[in-house]
Amino acid sequence: MSAKLFLIGVGPGDPQLLTLRAAKILKDARFVAFLRKPGTTSMALGIAKDHLQPGIALSPMDVPMQVAPQAAQNAYDLAATKISALLDQEKSVTYLCEGDPFFYGSAMYLFHRLSPAYEIEVVPGISSLGAASAAIPRPLVSRAQHLKVLSATMPEQEFEDELLTAQSVVVMKTGRHFLRIKNVLIKSGLAQNALIVEHASGAEQAVTPLLEYKGDCLPYFATILSFKGNGSPEKRGLE
Amino acid sequence: MSAKLFLIGVGPGDPQLLTLRAAKILKDARFVAFLRKPGTTSMALGIAKDHLQPGIALSPMDVPMQVAPQAAQNAYDLAATKISALLDQEKSVTYLCEGDPFFYGSAMYLFHRLSPAYEIEVVPGISSLGAASAAIPRPLVSRAQHLKVLSATMPEQEFEDELLTAQSVVVMKTGRHFLRIKNVLIKSGLAQNALIVEHASGAEQAVTPLLEYKGDCLPYFATILSFKGNGSPEKRGLE
Repeated sequence: MSAKLFLIGVGPGDPQLLTLRAAKILKDARFVAFLRKPGTTSMALGIAKDHLQPGIALSPMDVPMQVAPQAAQNAYDLAATKISALLDQEKSVTYLCEGDPFFYGSAMYLFHRLSPAYEIEVVPGISSLGAASAAIPRPLVSRAQHLKVLSATMPEQEFEDELLTAQSVVVMKTGRHFLRIKNVLIKSGLAQNALIVEHASGAEQAVTPLLEYKGDCLPYFATILSFKGNGSPEKRGLE
Repeated sequence: MSAKLFLIGVGPGDPQLLTLRAAKILKDARFVAFLRKPGTTSMALGIAKDHLQPGIALSPMDVPMQVAPQAAQNAYDLAATKISALLDQEKSVTYLCEGDPFFYGSAMYLFHRLSPAYEIEVVPGISSLGAASAAIPRPLVSRAQHLKVLSATMPEQEFEDELLTAQSVVVMKTGRHFLRIKNVLIKSGLAQNALIVEHASGAEQAVTPLLEYKGDCLPYFATILSFKGNGSPEKRGLE
């Protein structure tokens, strides 16, 4: 049996939201890799750690964020090189990814680099969408409605245009763009119903109406959810 | 300790994609409810069954689909009445929901009816989004991109308008609307890259390019994924 790369979603924060499949892979893992912002600890490792055997090899990948994109790409190149060296020695590698690997996850950079040459199993994880809507708690999307997941880093005019026809909207990657995004949501009539969910499902989970949020940026693990109209059950077709 | 209603997402099909939290709740469950199209078996029950104790009470809710919406609403009313009777007797109830409870899930009808009066825990599940993108396998959305999740049952003009600016798009609830949706995707230039994922993560999982799909309707558990452009790594910013 040849070596395999496991790209596993460890979910949004609560270790109980790991899947059975992920827990099994973690139990068998001997080489575990994860991304880390230099100088910080890995949330994904924190979620997974109780399922790992003692004494296994841990490989943090230091990926500089919010600097030149090329620096991050170089870090992924280096990580891919290290992982491929292990796979070439018939050693399977488990890469931990917060949330879901293919939903804005860092795993896709490794997948892109390594999938042509190696066997890869992608294990879906609970994304921040499900965890945030459970935290509010409020259905994210129902019946004939549609959902838009927008990145705060997209061009502002496109962002604003998408809000015009939004029904349910989730904004990812807000971070230091918070005040700008807040203003766009106000202008689009979506601020009144908007909620900020920080650390969905985690021990520090907090839900705050956007208009009451103090501070001018959001933590990395935060999403904004909003719903057009007043979100009454009649309007949403739930009765 | 008072009784609680658990609305649990059991994931898209593979029983190994249950969360640890869901498995724990199933193990302790004494009253388990689930939706069923009259005359069919419940996929959610099939996913969950190995975690249930023998001899527990199972309550199928027969919900007529694709008939008058009022008939479905009446069925949810009846189910809510039965569940509230159990909760009033201090008996906790576990409701099984395919995928994620708050992502087009039937659980939201019960949540709406019962949340004002009872304690409810919503346990997120792996949705078809994560399972379908892992099945392809291809990242769903990355970097500054946005994602649209559309329902085939939305008004056709709105559907078409949303495709104009789509980057990554997932179409839910296609079913008998398949030929119409296929034509709209062709017209919008999104058919070439579109893939149909049936029974994502399940034993019968199948991935088929939309333009090669035989048949004029899709099964209930199927999603269409498409990506604007040719989806090359350069265009998607993965290298």
